[in-house]
Amino acid sequence: MSTERTEIDKLGEFGLIEHLTENFETHNASTILSIGDDAAVIDHFGKQTVITTDLLIEGVHFDLMYTPLKHLGYKAVVVNLSDIYAMNATPTQITMSIAFSNRFSLEALEEFYEGVNIACEKYDVDLIGGDTSTSQKGFIISVTAIGEIAPDKYIKRSTAESGDLICVSGDLGAAFLGLTLMEREKQIFVENPQIQPNLENEDYIVGRLLKPEARKDIIEILENQNILPTSMMDISDGLSSELLHLCKQSNLGCRIYEEKIPIHDASRAAAFKFGLDPTVCALNGGEDYELLFTMKQSDYDKITLQEEISVIGYICDKEEGAKLITKGKNLFDITAQGWNAFGK
Amino acid sequence: MSTERTEIDKLGEFGLIEHLTENFETHNASTILSIGDDAAVIDHFGKQTVITTDLLIEGVHFDLMYTPLKHLGYKAVVVNLSDIYAMNATPTQITMSIAFSNRFSLEALEEFYEGVNIACEKYDVDLIGGDTSTSQKGFIISVTAIGEIAPDKYIKRSTAESGDLICVSGDLGAAFLGLTLMEREKQIFVENPQIQPNLENEDYIVGRLLKPEARKDIIEILENQNILPTSMMDISDGLSSELLHLCKQSNLGCRIYEEKIPIHDASRAAAFKFGLDPTVCALNGGEDYELLFTMKQSDYDKITLQEEISVIGYICDKEEGAKLITKGKNLFDITAQGWNAFGK
Repeated sequence: MSTERTEIDKLGEFGLIEHLTENFETHNASTILSIGDDAAVIDHFGKQTVITTDLLIEGVHFDLMYTPLKHLGYKAVVVNLSDIYAMNATPTQITMSIAFSNRFSLEALEEFYEGVNIACEKYDVDLIGGDTSTSQKGFIISVTAIGEIAPDKYIKRSTAESGDLICVSGDLGAAFLGLTLMEREKQIFVENPQIQPNLENEDYIVGRLLKPEARKDIIEILENQNILPTSMMDISDGLSSELLHLCKQSNLGCRIYEEKIPIHDASRAAAFKFGLDPTVCALNGGEDYELLFTMKQSDYDKITLQEEISVIGYICDKEEGAKLITKGKNLFDITAQGWNAFGK
Repeated sequence: MSTERTEIDKLGEFGLIEHLTENFETHNASTILSIGDDAAVIDHFGKQTVITTDLLIEGVHFDLMYTPLKHLGYKAVVVNLSDIYAMNATPTQITMSIAFSNRFSLEALEEFYEGVNIACEKYDVDLIGGDTSTSQKGFIISVTAIGEIAPDKYIKRSTAESGDLICVSGDLGAAFLGLTLMEREKQIFVENPQIQPNLENEDYIVGRLLKPEARKDIIEILENQNILPTSMMDISDGLSSELLHLCKQSNLGCRIYEEKIPIHDASRAAAFKFGLDPTVCALNGGEDYELLFTMKQSDYDKITLQEEISVIGYICDKEEGAKLITKGKNLFDITAQGWNAFGK
């Protein structure tokens, strides 16, 4: 990060937005009118528009003590794109508004917008609006992501059917373990600022926390393999919580197998080090931004060679409940212990 | 307001959003999928999508000491719809996210959402998404408004032409005078809580501050009279500031006549009482949410009978600058002293 410090009130609101977004290029023909007017204009040319929004608050959703602003800008975009992909749609535009206290310099905001720009470039989305203002305390981020989908091809959470296979992308629990590590190192640092954080060999779990990716590749695989999931959502609050949403909205139950839940070796090692059960981390840890979807059993052969997709169980009738089958063949009720913003 | 107090963590995040939005009805065929999934889905059936967003922060954009939560919910919607109308578009959907500290009860949030619902009903827009979370301090509101417009019929700020007439809707300066009054009464109350606020005969300016309206009616008048403005924007930061934006983006200058600036009698009386110049209040006061637009001189006859539209001047070449012609025929440069979120 730059060590210069320029006070923001030199630029004024309009100068600031112009300055922060001057390197942004548009990638989509659907972006008809971008930043600079009362509103932006989009034309998805006959496709349907998919829209999602998130509000991220310092001290609630992120901790700037261990979150570099560039990563934060990247992540703020990605977590919203993840919701667009979870509808089986293609993200095309975002709006980004921020509010910040006077402890933030222009250079700090530039770092943040650099991360935003990198995410926009990587995922081919256009920044088309938003504003900046002051806050009384902390950094506040509001992102709205917009995408497109052929009419009525979006995939909901409520349309799973009994007998469908339950699949997840990638691996689970790593972001939670990255958070556990960062919180532990923060505590050590707060108690003794001489001790430097020890993040050796923890690249994977730290990376999953600080720089998550949206699973555009999975949406592409599903399309290429001609698989239309029967239901889909992204995993932001932990597998347990999301499975319960999917079952509730589809009015069904599920069985998942502990041994089938994908957990990275680095996550297992970290869980072991912290004295945590890796399965519990995968079930209840949040912020993985993997995709959870169901598909017909007849599609199973199409994904057997896909390393990034794991079949973890199946959908059953509501009366059978939502249960985990452990390695020891015991049955446990799945309960939502996901990251609850209102929890204790 | 209700005097009950229910703590919010009884409901959890999903229960809270379900509870707060259970009375909301959808009004638009374009709302394909609403609250409850990863994202909402809209189909504007061949029309273009117009989108705008705002972040409103307690202590920066509003003061809960004199802003009832129901009014705040209403206003948070309306100020975003105003941006949609300013594009000549019709608002169709909004997303609304809020964050709040633990001093807010469920009943307080219900008040807020009641105001949101009243605005949605009045302007026929659908609440289709958003989330709720905690904040470390204060109340934070993020709104995104979505609208539709026939392809390429939107009106920008940058397309005024030399010789065009400059028009404004309604009257200006009232919201600023309402704010001045409320701030003054707040100061008196803080110094001596025994003294009740004196708002007698100030309904108009207080109403303009606390419950502004978006000028849907003006858009309808323009359409009915077959007037296509050459440029348009809403007045949120004060007439001076907005005129300078419009001139800068159109690469032109302007002349406006002090005597033509519409100011309500109640605003003149309040300005007199506070020792302020009503013209300065109209030029620099913000939050009027009136429309500023330019039109061809040939359209003049079509609006002479419209009491809600005032012609205040004309567009000229850039070299002639942006100037106010006073009642005494003096020329002054128009300078931006609008509400600047980064000002001192």
